[in-house]
Amino acid sequence: MKNKDCKTPYDIFRQRVNIIIHGVNTPAGRLFDIILLFVILLSVFLVMLESVESLDIIYHDFFIISEWIITIFFSIEYILRIISSRKPLKYIFSFYGIIDLISILPMYLSFFIPSTKILTVVRALRLLRLFRILNLVQFSGQASQLKLAINASKTKIIVFIYFVFIISILLGAVMFVVESPESGFTSIPTSIYWCIVTLTTVGYGDIAPITPLGKIIASFIMILGYGIIAVPTGIVTAELASGRKTRTLLPGACKKCGTNDHRNTAEFCYKCGAFLEE
Amino acid sequence: MKNKDCKTPYDIFRQRVNIIIHGVNTPAGRLFDIILLFVILLSVFLVMLESVESLDIIYHDFFIISEWIITIFFSIEYILRIISSRKPLKYIFSFYGIIDLISILPMYLSFFIPSTKILTVVRALRLLRLFRILNLVQFSGQASQLKLAINASKTKIIVFIYFVFIISILLGAVMFVVESPESGFTSIPTSIYWCIVTLTTVGYGDIAPITPLGKIIASFIMILGYGIIAVPTGIVTAELASGRKTRTLLPGACKKCGTNDHRNTAEFCYKCGAFLEE
Amino acid sequence: MKNKDCKTPYDIFRQRVNIIIHGVNTPAGRLFDIILLFVILLSVFLVMLESVESLDIIYHDFFIISEWIITIFFSIEYILRIISSRKPLKYIFSFYGIIDLISILPMYLSFFIPSTKILTVVRALRLLRLFRILNLVQFSGQASQLKLAINASKTKIIVFIYFVFIISILLGAVMFVVESPESGFTSIPTSIYWCIVTLTTVGYGDIAPITPLGKIIASFIMILGYGIIAVPTGIVTAELASGRKTRTLLPGACKKCGTNDHRNTAEFCYKCGAFLEE
Amino acid sequence: MKNKDCKTPYDIFRQRVNIIIHGVNTPAGRLFDIILLFVILLSVFLVMLESVESLDIIYHDFFIISEWIITIFFSIEYILRIISSRKPLKYIFSFYGIIDLISILPMYLSFFIPSTKILTVVRALRLLRLFRILNLVQFSGQASQLKLAINASKTKIIVFIYFVFIISILLGAVMFVVESPESGFTSIPTSIYWCIVTLTTVGYGDIAPITPLGKIIASFIMILGYGIIAVPTGIVTAELASGRKTRTLLPGACKKCGTNDHRNTAEFCYKCGAFLEE
Repeated sequence: MKNKDCKTPYDIFRQRVNIIIHGVNTPAGRLFDIILLFVILLSVFLVMLESVESLDIIYHDFFIISEWIITIFFSIEYILRIISSRKPLKYIFSFYGIIDLISILPMYLSFFIPSTKILTVVRALRLLRLFRILNLVQFSGQASQLKLAINASKTKIIVFIYFVFIISILLGAVMFVVESPESGFTSIPTSIYWCIVTLTTVGYGDIAPITPLGKIIASFIMILGYGIIAVPTGIVTAELASGRKTRTLLPGACKKCGTNDHRNTAEFCYKCGAFLEE
Repeated sequence: MKNKDCKTPYDIFRQRVNIIIHGVNTPAGRLFDIILLFVILLSVFLVMLESVESLDIIYHDFFIISEWIITIFFSIEYILRIISSRKPLKYIFSFYGIIDLISILPMYLSFFIPSTKILTVVRALRLLRLFRILNLVQFSGQASQLKLAINASKTKIIVFIYFVFIISILLGAVMFVVESPESGFTSIPTSIYWCIVTLTTVGYGDIAPITPLGKIIASFIMILGYGIIAVPTGIVTAELASGRKTRTLLPGACKKCGTNDHRNTAEFCYKCGAFLEE
Repeated sequence: MKNKDCKTPYDIFRQRVNIIIHGVNTPAGRLFDIILLFVILLSVFLVMLESVESLDIIYHDFFIISEWIITIFFSIEYILRIISSRKPLKYIFSFYGIIDLISILPMYLSFFIPSTKILTVVRALRLLRLFRILNLVQFSGQASQLKLAINASKTKIIVFIYFVFIISILLGAVMFVVESPESGFTSIPTSIYWCIVTLTTVGYGDIAPITPLGKIIASFIMILGYGIIAVPTGIVTAELASGRKTRTLLPGACKKCGTNDHRNTAEFCYKCGAFLEE
Repeated sequence: MKNKDCKTPYDIFRQRVNIIIHGVNTPAGRLFDIILLFVILLSVFLVMLESVESLDIIYHDFFIISEWIITIFFSIEYILRIISSRKPLKYIFSFYGIIDLISILPMYLSFFIPSTKILTVVRALRLLRLFRILNLVQFSGQASQLKLAINASKTKIIVFIYFVFIISILLGAVMFVVESPESGFTSIPTSIYWCIVTLTTVGYGDIAPITPLGKIIASFIMILGYGIIAVPTGIVTAELASGRKTRTLLPGACKKCGTNDHRNTAEFCYKCGAFLEE
């Protein structure tokens, strides 16, 4: 369908936009990435500040105006991304496409939904754009090695978390039987919550055992938690130590599975289906 | 005693039940496993919700009826397991056999014991059926490798926990001498409890040192706990790292000791006596 | 000086006592060790219970009588140890000799010092006898391997703790400047104490930042603490992993430095001077 | 410019001072180092005690006098360091030069600024001299090996911390939406602070979820935090384990980058520009 020899002006425009948005090697592409990075950070920062009631009262108008400016900026970016994409629908329904849409919708919805309360909450969805930064900032090598090690030890860590969860349910039920509701162990779910708080060594202290037997069991849970923290650590370390010797991620390789013999025009990894960002 | 050529209808029924309950490769066997998994999870979920007083008041009748349905389901499963087992007594007195019995008894006992209070607690014993899920969900490979590493480092971790315990007793006694009862250090056992809470970096804050000397000793205990957490981690990691190189669990191997040259009809590992689940 | 051919009855008595106290291979020696183990644990248990005021009021007489029985038992053991030792003075001034003496003195002192208050505290010194159990219970192999790894990484861990301490002083001073005394940061030492509590992820919550800037710095300290916990773990793990390959402790080897070519009559390691317990 | 054959008395004085201040091998140099070490520790100790209000009221005059003595001692040391340095300006604008100046300035400023309040705070800057001790106390070998491992894994740890931070922002926003302001989640920044407190397993307990959904999400965050603590540990361990095999820091090598073929007269590493302390 596409012909390299005769291009309409629209095709040329699309190609230029493509270079600016997806390209990292041209000055315009770099500038766009840096501006986008700052606007996202600014947007995140504004959402955070807006939630502080004392600030919202004073600077309410300022926040509204900034929100609109950022929304318009993101809207233009969204439209350009759709235009420049070779397969617009694929982008729209991709993970980042949906996030990009979600981050601009709330402000437009504010015309129809008057309540400010709900909107503040919905606006927080814009924070999801932080994921976009993960791709903008290029920790190639280091991050990908980390990702590989974590991916490789994922199954083991899930098995481990599953065991932690079952232990928490059982010990939580025991503590519910042993401790009285006065000390905060009002139900089995609450006891399980306490057990996870203790096992992970967080220890808020909002619920704490009072009876001697409860304290003995709690001590046992703590030492257990202290001991089993070794397991995920051991898993990841063993993976990383072995990873040091053999695996290195080649340029252009899929960040998820490490496959690197993709065609130049490939947009998705032919092995695991992950999106290939340049 | 068993003759392959002439089977009574009961033998055929037993064989079918056996295939359904123990088989994983037939559709019926798979379906049974999935149903069992969901019923156990549902049962666990109900026990948890029942303990929440506000819910129990509203949905009391619903909980009672659900309990009865689940109990009848588990009872049928229990009877089928006894029937299908080649050696019924072995199953009845095995770990899972006892758990299966415990999880159905409380409801039948409710005819004789009227008090609802005690029964709610006893019913929590059904949570033990969660162990059954450990076998249903097959994490073969990953989990068994983990188990082997943990088994191998078990002795070292027990030695380590023993040291932690002695340190806690000694430092607990020191804190009892140093701190006044006003700050919560009312007795040596309480001080030991506090010491374990601190050493494992849980830190509830229900008991905290007030005197300057107490705070200095507490700081020392914390840094100590921060340092010695390295020991169990080191143990498991070293074990896992070395395990990566040599050991792999063959299919059909005993999950406890790794022996894999069992006869096809073997139900228990001939080396360590562990039950061989298919 | 000693002549194997003509022994006085006292020499024979001494030799028998020696076999009972120090020998592990004879039935009498084993029985003595087990009895000693239980008496020490009982003694520790009594000291702990005595400190609980509510129990002390009810069972005061029982505690006093038990104390006396245990004290007499330990006194006899102490005298037998002196008699049976080839070099009594060496035993008396050794680490365990001093602990053994300390654990029996308080009760005899109670004739001269009437105050019960001080004595309860002094009696807690008996807990030090727990160290004796470390030798009674023989974790040979596992424990010694652990000890070697910890000894090898000791210097690095001390360097690490030193850095943690300096960081705590500096960040503690910063938090004192940033936070107001109202939120608990009343002085630099208190701030340092808080900083250690936070850095080691204990987090009592008795002191917590209130101002926004304080919370930002606190977040930074927490993530820092979360990150540097990796260092001691890494040290011990690397040591243990390398230890697996090369070092094994031979029977009769010095538990401290691993030297194993001692003479049969040697009581102290000829290389590091550590006491050679059988 | 310098001529070894004809030295002015000032040159001889400078050389002697140089030997005393920078030399470690001469008795005078060692004595100076030990005295400096103790004066710094004393100075740090005084700053800490001064901040305790109850002590400051009683010993105010004593503190002022001690401060002056220490300030004069440090001033002399500062002047001697400038004199003895071959390139005085380089020292003055070096990291340690600025710290040395900062630690003496506050007392001289007290002539012009009367307020005691501000001065106490400014005086805390003297704590920065603790960095000087890092060089005085020579942990050569152990510390440098640690430093190398930490330097090597720095990038990975920063990537890791960045992920922790993004997760905290997202989960913090979620908790703000889920929990009501009554339970302490008053704004998104506060929620993020709580999320970091939880994820790092510190767990103060000043803010804790109350709603069931909040508790479920909190449990998830805790287990997540418990799991991802494995990552930095794995990084450092893998680095240290591999470091054991290959790298050893030769005497005279740069402590920052390990380069060791410096000229004898070199003051700064020719490769990374770090100051070469003897």
